[in-house]
Amino acid sequence: MLYTKQTEISRATFGRIPLYLSYLRTLDDETATISATTLAGKVGLGEVQVRKDLGAISGAGRPKVGYAVRELIKALEARLGSSGNTNVVVVGAGRLGRALLDYGGFKAYGLNLSAAFDIAVEQAQESACGKPILPMRDLEAYCTRHDIRIAILTVPADCAQTVCDRLLSNGVKAFWCFAPCTLSVPPEVTVKYENMALSLAYLNINTIANEGDLL
Amino acid sequence: MLYTKQTEISRATFGRIPLYLSYLRTLDDETATISATTLAGKVGLGEVQVRKDLGAISGAGRPKVGYAVRELIKALEARLGSSGNTNVVVVGAGRLGRALLDYGGFKAYGLNLSAAFDIAVEQAQESACGKPILPMRDLEAYCTRHDIRIAILTVPADCAQTVCDRLLSNGVKAFWCFAPCTLSVPPEVTVKYENMALSLAYLNINTIANEGDLL
Repeated sequence: MLYTKQTEISRATFGRIPLYLSYLRTLDDETATISATTLAGKVGLGEVQVRKDLGAISGAGRPKVGYAVRELIKALEARLGSSGNTNVVVVGAGRLGRALLDYGGFKAYGLNLSAAFDIAVEQAQESACGKPILPMRDLEAYCTRHDIRIAILTVPADCAQTVCDRLLSNGVKAFWCFAPCTLSVPPEVTVKYENMALSLAYLNINTIANEGDLL
Repeated sequence: MLYTKQTEISRATFGRIPLYLSYLRTLDDETATISATTLAGKVGLGEVQVRKDLGAISGAGRPKVGYAVRELIKALEARLGSSGNTNVVVVGAGRLGRALLDYGGFKAYGLNLSAAFDIAVEQAQESACGKPILPMRDLEAYCTRHDIRIAILTVPADCAQTVCDRLLSNGVKAFWCFAPCTLSVPPEVTVKYENMALSLAYLNINTIANEGDLL
């Protein structure tokens, strides 16, 4: 309770947590405190930025002393949720699903993409990185056993709702949905939609606009 | 010039263009006009929304007549940039790069991911969908020959800037960057950063927050 603040932090601040942590974790045990100035220099950010970020996450440093390193690490880890690793499942083990399953970047944020499921998989397989790719019939048991709260949907749009419903009945509270569809979920459940094509297309029209062509 | 407006449109409006187009393209040549009411019903959106979207894209419909179907299609296609297909290259043909290269969803937005490049590729290969994956030495010639203005970077962070510089010298004006880094580009060049891990992690903390746990 000492180390964390309940305030909302911005996505930008949140995104910088791994940067702070990766430096702070290199410090030996003898380094009890660190000033915002030093930390800012080490991670290549402005001092004002660092004070603001850490202020939102763990509270202000002590004047002339700075931040207690161990406490700061704990506060940052708690925000990331990485003290306890969060298991996430991927449903739909096509190219995108497999790419996400094996992507190494989630770990820094305390996220463990622990398994994928696919309707075309009859017997348990392994991904290129050795993660399990399981038949759909194992979905419910797996979610219960691993306390899955977050699922990534990389299934075709026409079966996304069916998959979503099965996951909802098994305690999933948040979806990252790559299928081009709108999911019907209870109000307490979060859905983040990812439309890769739209992201690129929007970049395209803005580029054309910058070039002065007729839109 | 008749069909398009120069105004900026929102990402949300832009995202609905394929929806309008996919319905309008099913109409036969005898359907010369369509009302906002009819179109709204067919695509499952509110009439106000449809009027607003089309107003921003092609101007208002004529009272009691509606929108001229052929002109509306042209205006929507012009906004998407799909009358002339935009070629895009992917640099970095790892799992994510290949998943994007072969993803079918870009086509509806007039985008053609035409080739990928990778430092590990010595001889031209084909992706699972038959698209070329080429050696890095072919990058410059390919970009020039295919008038490439947009590149997707799915390379490791430590070589992203080098790749970016090579593409900049060859006329690329926009980057969709999946590498966790900040690219240094001239002011007229657009970079959209995609941090997949951060997106999922942010969903995670918001889910925990909804559950009332300590952040």
